[in-house]
Amino acid sequence: MTDTSYRLGELTTDDAAASVARGDVVILPAGAFEQHGPAMPMATDLIRAEDMADRVAAALPGRVVIGPSLPVGVSPHHLGFAGTVTLRPATFLTVAREYVDSLAQHGWRRILVITGHAGNNATLGALAQDLLHDRPDIEFVWTAIASLAAPVTAKMDRAEVTGHCGESETAQMLHVAPHLVHADRLVPGTTALDQLDPLSRQARRTAPSLARRYDQLSANGVLGDPTTATADQGRAIVDAVTTALVDYVQEWLAA
Amino acid sequence: MTDTSYRLGELTTDDAAASVARGDVVILPAGAFEQHGPAMPMATDLIRAEDMADRVAAALPGRVVIGPSLPVGVSPHHLGFAGTVTLRPATFLTVAREYVDSLAQHGWRRILVITGHAGNNATLGALAQDLLHDRPDIEFVWTAIASLAAPVTAKMDRAEVTGHCGESETAQMLHVAPHLVHADRLVPGTTALDQLDPLSRQARRTAPSLARRYDQLSANGVLGDPTTATADQGRAIVDAVTTALVDYVQEWLAA
Amino acid sequence: MTDTSYRLGELTTDDAAASVARGDVVILPAGAFEQHGPAMPMATDLIRAEDMADRVAAALPGRVVIGPSLPVGVSPHHLGFAGTVTLRPATFLTVAREYVDSLAQHGWRRILVITGHAGNNATLGALAQDLLHDRPDIEFVWTAIASLAAPVTAKMDRAEVTGHCGESETAQMLHVAPHLVHADRLVPGTTALDQLDPLSRQARRTAPSLARRYDQLSANGVLGDPTTATADQGRAIVDAVTTALVDYVQEWLAA
Amino acid sequence: MTDTSYRLGELTTDDAAASVARGDVVILPAGAFEQHGPAMPMATDLIRAEDMADRVAAALPGRVVIGPSLPVGVSPHHLGFAGTVTLRPATFLTVAREYVDSLAQHGWRRILVITGHAGNNATLGALAQDLLHDRPDIEFVWTAIASLAAPVTAKMDRAEVTGHCGESETAQMLHVAPHLVHADRLVPGTTALDQLDPLSRQARRTAPSLARRYDQLSANGVLGDPTTATADQGRAIVDAVTTALVDYVQEWLAA
Amino acid sequence: MTDTSYRLGELTTDDAAASVARGDVVILPAGAFEQHGPAMPMATDLIRAEDMADRVAAALPGRVVIGPSLPVGVSPHHLGFAGTVTLRPATFLTVAREYVDSLAQHGWRRILVITGHAGNNATLGALAQDLLHDRPDIEFVWTAIASLAAPVTAKMDRAEVTGHCGESETAQMLHVAPHLVHADRLVPGTTALDQLDPLSRQARRTAPSLARRYDQLSANGVLGDPTTATADQGRAIVDAVTTALVDYVQEWLAA
Amino acid sequence: MTDTSYRLGELTTDDAAASVARGDVVILPAGAFEQHGPAMPMATDLIRAEDMADRVAAALPGRVVIGPSLPVGVSPHHLGFAGTVTLRPATFLTVAREYVDSLAQHGWRRILVITGHAGNNATLGALAQDLLHDRPDIEFVWTAIASLAAPVTAKMDRAEVTGHCGESETAQMLHVAPHLVHADRLVPGTTALDQLDPLSRQARRTAPSLARRYDQLSANGVLGDPTTATADQGRAIVDAVTTALVDYVQEWLAA
Repeated sequence: MTDTSYRLGELTTDDAAASVARGDVVILPAGAFEQHGPAMPMATDLIRAEDMADRVAAALPGRVVIGPSLPVGVSPHHLGFAGTVTLRPATFLTVAREYVDSLAQHGWRRILVITGHAGNNATLGALAQDLLHDRPDIEFVWTAIASLAAPVTAKMDRAEVTGHCGESETAQMLHVAPHLVHADRLVPGTTALDQLDPLSRQARRTAPSLARRYDQLSANGVLGDPTTATADQGRAIVDAVTTALVDYVQEWLAA
Repeated sequence: MTDTSYRLGELTTDDAAASVARGDVVILPAGAFEQHGPAMPMATDLIRAEDMADRVAAALPGRVVIGPSLPVGVSPHHLGFAGTVTLRPATFLTVAREYVDSLAQHGWRRILVITGHAGNNATLGALAQDLLHDRPDIEFVWTAIASLAAPVTAKMDRAEVTGHCGESETAQMLHVAPHLVHADRLVPGTTALDQLDPLSRQARRTAPSLARRYDQLSANGVLGDPTTATADQGRAIVDAVTTALVDYVQEWLAA
Repeated sequence: MTDTSYRLGELTTDDAAASVARGDVVILPAGAFEQHGPAMPMATDLIRAEDMADRVAAALPGRVVIGPSLPVGVSPHHLGFAGTVTLRPATFLTVAREYVDSLAQHGWRRILVITGHAGNNATLGALAQDLLHDRPDIEFVWTAIASLAAPVTAKMDRAEVTGHCGESETAQMLHVAPHLVHADRLVPGTTALDQLDPLSRQARRTAPSLARRYDQLSANGVLGDPTTATADQGRAIVDAVTTALVDYVQEWLAA
Repeated sequence: MTDTSYRLGELTTDDAAASVARGDVVILPAGAFEQHGPAMPMATDLIRAEDMADRVAAALPGRVVIGPSLPVGVSPHHLGFAGTVTLRPATFLTVAREYVDSLAQHGWRRILVITGHAGNNATLGALAQDLLHDRPDIEFVWTAIASLAAPVTAKMDRAEVTGHCGESETAQMLHVAPHLVHADRLVPGTTALDQLDPLSRQARRTAPSLARRYDQLSANGVLGDPTTATADQGRAIVDAVTTALVDYVQEWLAA
Repeated sequence: MTDTSYRLGELTTDDAAASVARGDVVILPAGAFEQHGPAMPMATDLIRAEDMADRVAAALPGRVVIGPSLPVGVSPHHLGFAGTVTLRPATFLTVAREYVDSLAQHGWRRILVITGHAGNNATLGALAQDLLHDRPDIEFVWTAIASLAAPVTAKMDRAEVTGHCGESETAQMLHVAPHLVHADRLVPGTTALDQLDPLSRQARRTAPSLARRYDQLSANGVLGDPTTATADQGRAIVDAVTTALVDYVQEWLAA
Repeated sequence: MTDTSYRLGELTTDDAAASVARGDVVILPAGAFEQHGPAMPMATDLIRAEDMADRVAAALPGRVVIGPSLPVGVSPHHLGFAGTVTLRPATFLTVAREYVDSLAQHGWRRILVITGHAGNNATLGALAQDLLHDRPDIEFVWTAIASLAAPVTAKMDRAEVTGHCGESETAQMLHVAPHLVHADRLVPGTTALDQLDPLSRQARRTAPSLARRYDQLSANGVLGDPTTATADQGRAIVDAVTTALVDYVQEWLAA
């Protein structure tokens, strides 16, 4: 047992009480349990979120603890691929809400959800609205890793169509959990707009928003070309996101 | 009674049956019932959404009909100002879902929600996920007006802090419903970051996301300086959004 | 912008605050989005409810404001006819409840729902019971237009079977929104009990109550003979209902 | 064990299967658990409903069975008096719905709810709408005893204000369950409009509808003068309702 | 009317107020409406629970009252047999919860649910957890009759496979409600493990828990051999359970 | 990446498809996030459940996979101690249900929940009933570790009052995750009945069931004397439970 753990799940109730007294931020890592193509594991998004939570907490000793994870997210678009487990948006919202309510009952006031899965964004946004309504005393912050990774990712050489299991996500996994990536099975997925049917092409736009199932977008569940991803790229992404989050939390604690 | 109406609410059940047979897109305008500062009406977002629906429908005769509106949206952040009426995200989702289910039962397959209120975005995103799960036969598209307005709005001369009731929204209302704007009461709201408390400054970032109540962001409910807005700017915005939507729907119908 | 508007949707948050301070009644117009036969529009019930709200508000300046509408009601019995959109009773109840909760949060205490659609009655009755339970501080009143119209309607020359889209409703629309009535398409619907199957005949009794779908009651969705309706009859009905409501509200405000 | 019982609760599963095969009507008695003044029991409404169910079933041997009761109804307006137990409208609806769903799964198609408590009417009306939506194969009929009693009750000599625990209900109990009426404790309740506060007077109208708690309407929970009630009046009421229901069911089975 | 009744349903609101003032325990009898083989009635579990409630209340005059029953329980496993009516666990929980909430609003603090149906156990356990969360002021106790009967039942000569409608339950009914048992129709059901399919054999273990439908366990819905049951055995069981409950309540009231 | 992993979260969608084709059992480990006294971590129940899942899966290669965990359980009774996070029973049920529904959609038919937290038992029992109702095609099995540990635990030398964080649980943790046990902080909790208040003493009985908050049962959250626990005892318990589960699954797969 290390006294320097920052994971509540590995700490005792007395440690939890001390964290409340310090006014710590509680990080809740949120993932998904969904297909990640032929080479990456179902828990990819949780693995990345928990890893990021660890990095932020390690950088801010005595200011941050990590609460329970949300291992399953909102992934109906991946149900066409075996193994995907999804929650309804309403269910994911309720689970996250009850985590927050429990933490708030003990006295924590600052909650940060880090989601490795952007499919949870809409529900986290709705939860934030509910909390604003019911619990104005709580400061509830959430972010997708992908949003904070965008400045780095934008500079990468990526296919015309990219995203899920693509260059960026694969690079992160090669840095964070290389033992769980089957490098020999990495293959391109859909990489160009003209590989998509017309409706799926429209679905690539940011607005208007049109949701498609992944089995309509890609035969192997991959968007982009993961074979070009490197662990060094992954490190650059992960470092940038870590820095952004550490800076954010420091400002927050000082606010 | 004009035979050329495209609003289902003004049409008969026989007209509805004809629209189903044609495979029309059904537009659902979504608004909000919330404070819009000292000079603009509570229904501003609905007015803009219904106006936009009319423009799109008028441009695509015999291809589009307009279904019932969602006059109240998700606005807990405005409850600090008198008159604001809000639905819970879960309630808004259920109402929109039951609109879609009813329309689908008659045979329509293409639904487009145009929301004048970006506070509805999260819930519309969650609804899209639920529909993907339950009704893969339906093509459900949604957009905020603000998202499509961004290319034009970005070129406007706006305050450092801007948004709700600001330059863009006021300009749109001066074009679309000038009789409902009290031009003499237009006054700046919060216009600079240093007018905000530290937490509210953090809340201005896109990611991480931190929701604040509007009474924490602005004394009069306004972000930006609406006194600089002009009807001409409004026309430019509205025209650009109309064009974007008309083009989108045409592609969609051809897909 | 008219300073004499009484519609909250056209007013500002400052106007709303003034209304709260005056102790105004807030009227919520409730409609339906359902078939109204070959000659009348889907939004007939909303149109009549909003019109009635306007009349009552106009007669009681500075005592009444009109809140957001409920444009879609409980109409499963009309789903057999194209275009009908329905909410579940539970959904309609929740929406109306959240309207009331929002208004009450601002300080209004008197709420009046005017429904143009009697299919909303059961749910409004259930909502009244919930409010009695949870919000004894709120005075929640509701009425169907048809209930208040009964004294006048009873004196009209109507078919043996009458009701939806029949003599009374058509007369009201000819007075209130003649431009939306296709006079040339007005045709009789089911007008006599012996046109009904035995179960539908039983369904015409007040008690016991037996609900039937309209496609079981009428081939064209009409009950009664709308061809005999006149705008003058409509005026008589509308005037009587207006008077009844104005008198009621005056007593209420004096109570 | 009598072979001639018609109560499913006293019958075996084989008897139930035979009833399904015959196409019987299933009666569900609904009551309330609420104050009935100083002289009558909390279960008055259930007692009257179960008694009526027995009478109808006895009159139609081999055509009708009685299913499980709904012993608690929607009674928030009586919670000011000790002992009242209430369900939410949504809960009562769900319970009744699950009774119907279970019965329908076995093959029964005709369900009749007899409610001794008019406070259940709104919810039963809403349930009928839900069933119309989801289970068009089921013929769902419901009635309050009071509605069918009206022709007889109207001829009784009753106080200006009457109703709950008043002349009619007390008369029924004196006929149906005299051993549960404390005749020596029967006392008048509120009997005249001028005993009511202005809002409660408005609440006595049929439309608009304004719900009041019973502790606002009557100090002892009684409306009317139960001391004038007789068992003979009760017999007349009960006989009239029985006849109305038996005739109704016969028509129904023949339809 | 006996002044010594302890059933709230037969008492007046004044009697209820007196019970609250005394700090009585309120017993809620819970049953099921489900098949009980070829010889016993659908309401067997309710009959046994109400009988037990009466015995306990009679033994503790002025300390215990009986509230409304829960006549229908959680019985999906019996739906394969005609007549069974079931509630969802969530619905049963909500109904029981609203009973408790109503009673608590009047001031009772001690609630005891006696269930004749062990299929309600899981839901009652979940309800107890919810009450612990929300209403720490309430002492909520529940028990299945079978749990308290186990010491006596264990000494009976029973078949290898026994349970529903078996030796113990039949014995209880022969003591409590012999007029509702068709003695001539009592026949053995499944009595030996080798009559079960392999999965059903596994389902007989306490842990792990594997639920099976009764039509998979027994052709006639019976487990065990009810032909060996006697009224004397039933008396022994009922007396033992009564004693256990009376002792428990006495300790509780003294705690 | 080991090809011999049995954790779906570490496997790819292709591996998942292979598991479905083999007809594997899917194990879902369920824990709790709750106080475990001064010496053991909040995630104790999840750690034990996931460890047990691994042991069973490792013993049955190619027959079992492990799905996503349920890291938070139903723990309202521990909310008096800092750090405890709880779900409502209804929420826990829904989450587990959606896991099962997702797995079933891919074709798995055998699901086994291993819960390290007995507070989840009631909800798992209710879920089993819902699945029996809705998904008779699924074989849903669940067990608490404690239930299978009972034969070994019963032979241990334990305090009169024992249970949560007591001899057995501590022994298991000393075997399974010794690095997370602060051996130097292990102290006795409540160990004798006479240390409890009268109501808490009653709460120690199996039936009737009376739930108490842990802060009413123990000052430090511990029941029993963990200082006597040894890793060897833990191994004996864990081995016995593993054997029981492996045997069970083998029978199941052969059924």
